[in-house]
Amino acid sequence: MARLVMKFGGTSVADLERIRNVARHVKREVEAGNQVAVVVSAMAGVTNTLVGYTRDAAALHDAREYDAVVASGEQVTSGLLAIVLQDMGVEARSWQGWQIPIRTNEAHGAARIESIEGQTLIERLERGQVAVCAGFQGVAPDNRLATLGRGGSDTSAVAIAAAIQADRCDIYTDVDGVYTTDPRVVAKATRLERVAFEEMLEMASLGAKVLQVRSVEMAMVHGVRTFVRSSFDDPDAPQISADGTPVGTLICDEDEILEQQVVTGIAYSKDEAQISIRNVADKPGIASRVFGPLAEGNINVDMIVQNISPDGKTTDITFTVPESDYERARKVIEENVEEIGFENIEGATDVVKVSVIGMGMRSHAGVAAQCFEGLAEKGINIRAITTSEIKISVLIDSAYTELAVRTLHSLYGLDG
Amino acid sequence: MARLVMKFGGTSVADLERIRNVARHVKREVEAGNQVAVVVSAMAGVTNTLVGYTRDAAALHDAREYDAVVASGEQVTSGLLAIVLQDMGVEARSWQGWQIPIRTNEAHGAARIESIEGQTLIERLERGQVAVCAGFQGVAPDNRLATLGRGGSDTSAVAIAAAIQADRCDIYTDVDGVYTTDPRVVAKATRLERVAFEEMLEMASLGAKVLQVRSVEMAMVHGVRTFVRSSFDDPDAPQISADGTPVGTLICDEDEILEQQVVTGIAYSKDEAQISIRNVADKPGIASRVFGPLAEGNINVDMIVQNISPDGKTTDITFTVPESDYERARKVIEENVEEIGFENIEGATDVVKVSVIGMGMRSHAGVAAQCFEGLAEKGINIRAITTSEIKISVLIDSAYTELAVRTLHSLYGLDG
Repeated sequence: MARLVMKFGGTSVADLERIRNVARHVKREVEAGNQVAVVVSAMAGVTNTLVGYTRDAAALHDAREYDAVVASGEQVTSGLLAIVLQDMGVEARSWQGWQIPIRTNEAHGAARIESIEGQTLIERLERGQVAVCAGFQGVAPDNRLATLGRGGSDTSAVAIAAAIQADRCDIYTDVDGVYTTDPRVVAKATRLERVAFEEMLEMASLGAKVLQVRSVEMAMVHGVRTFVRSSFDDPDAPQISADGTPVGTLICDEDEILEQQVVTGIAYSKDEAQISIRNVADKPGIASRVFGPLAEGNINVDMIVQNISPDGKTTDITFTVPESDYERARKVIEENVEEIGFENIEGATDVVKVSVIGMGMRSHAGVAAQCFEGLAEKGINIRAITTSEIKISVLIDSAYTELAVRTLHSLYGLDG
Repeated sequence: MARLVMKFGGTSVADLERIRNVARHVKREVEAGNQVAVVVSAMAGVTNTLVGYTRDAAALHDAREYDAVVASGEQVTSGLLAIVLQDMGVEARSWQGWQIPIRTNEAHGAARIESIEGQTLIERLERGQVAVCAGFQGVAPDNRLATLGRGGSDTSAVAIAAAIQADRCDIYTDVDGVYTTDPRVVAKATRLERVAFEEMLEMASLGAKVLQVRSVEMAMVHGVRTFVRSSFDDPDAPQISADGTPVGTLICDEDEILEQQVVTGIAYSKDEAQISIRNVADKPGIASRVFGPLAEGNINVDMIVQNISPDGKTTDITFTVPESDYERARKVIEENVEEIGFENIEGATDVVKVSVIGMGMRSHAGVAAQCFEGLAEKGINIRAITTSEIKISVLIDSAYTELAVRTLHSLYGLDG
């Protein structure tokens, strides 16, 4: 017997037929003797409709009222799933964020969960009742509804799992797990049985869209074992892996991963733009003069590379920003030309960041060198490099995306 | 300066254009220096859609979960109206039933309001903020959403008006007031400037569909002056009556009505079916043996007439039930034939109850006689009669509905 959280997104609850399918998944776990809390999103499309209403009501609208309108979507799904479960003979009860309660901060529209009172839910679970929780929302200190921002239901699920001390948080999604890389790019990509929290955090940050970054952070902080699996799997007879467990990917502490690979996956992100400032006077404080104004403009800088130029007196600074901030970032730098003191500014938006990720990297030398060699052999020019303990990222021309990802996937022995 | 509740139904908030129209009504009252609480229904059609979902989810569904699903409709409208008001420069905030809170009993799906905490709303109103309240709902003792049953938003409005000690509760609807009778039947029907609570209660009970019966009861009990007016009136320049007040009907204490008419209005109800039991042994306890089983079967009996038959040993009992209960009621009586002891049972569904209503009747003799004579002159046969202090109801063949209503309307001098 285990205590589980099962999370289902908008496409999994898009209509009553799919809600019945979700209920069968839940019933299977209940009949296996598990205590189950379910977290649901709004029916697919409903949140967009509600957001559209608020925009039509006023272009600039109060975030508190936006939250009151938009939070209604999950309320409907939670009630309907409870009804369907009861109809299948499974005792169930819906729970809105304010009823549990899930307390958030005051950042309406993009609130963060501050605490969850798990005791009431635990009592119900122990009585054998399924708790169907509305995802994506909580109640702010002013007793008003607060939503967590798009995709927040993953975060709700992990946070509830932490609050009720669940053994596992199952994220049912439209893919059957986390892959070594994007299967649309590399046909030989394979599903990972297990991924460490830190690796998943890098993958989620770097563009693997299976899980919201915030939910992975929360899972890591609270040690919530999170299992990504397919909601389209047969609810009554789910597919089984070689080891007898359901098909999916477990995101867990690295201690749970017996045979840690050096490299776990290859991620890429096309939402990058590069800006290079040439011949900046190389003196103390120059970096803050470049990046201070960008921070003030709320521009998120990702990679930063600074090289000393041959003459030793000037330097080149290259950095990347999200593609949507490219024009604004260039303008900020150009406006500060006298303050910074540089010769010229260059940029490119047809770039991609490719990343090699793996916990095993920490204890294996030569992973980075192998990456650079592999790309060089294919004639792929590297524009910038950043590394962390468990990740190497290179910025390259976007035309080489697929070639680079396939090359690295094969190089590190990930081809299935 | 006054403190007002303004209530708008589903057709008045059917889309954003109409919600903007509602906001202009609200703005007008705010600019006139009034404190305003608004009560809104769900957008027209939304409640039906949500109810449909719960039915599709399971034919027999949990009333608590029904409430969680269905209450979301008013939540959306309240948030949207708050946004539109803010956009027009009117300070506003939405309030869900659980936030105020509006406390109900545990009768989920058809809950009754038990108490409303008015202080928080009053503080906001006194700060000049419009309170946009979700109608039709409250929170039950178990901290779950509870809806008041269809049409419950009128009741919400009157109850909130009582709780915040409002000077008036304005019910905006698709007609411009309460008429002496149904204008579709009698072209000469005229709008009543004022109606006493008791009269309105009779009219509402007898089929005038302007206001929910429960809301009139509550208005009477708490002395809430309730004003029925048109939401389609120009919000910026509403129509004015001869006395300088807006066009509409004020439902108020009879003390506020200077020239009380003997008869205020003629109502009719087609939702009637007649059952007559012939030659029942006329002995003590016979009535309870007839109506006991009907009450047990939850069948609402309306008119009851008992006559002694010529021989003095048997009696005939005639009563009416809602048309939808007709077959069931007949069956209940037939099943109890031995217990009751009667010769035969007759019935009719093509009957209508026509009622003459007026507070002035209490002090005027001959009103009933005038009614019977008037109908007799037109050759209309009366099947049954019931009376109260302020009402005379007659059951007649439904073919004579229009003729009877027009005859009585003219007879009591109500033709405009």
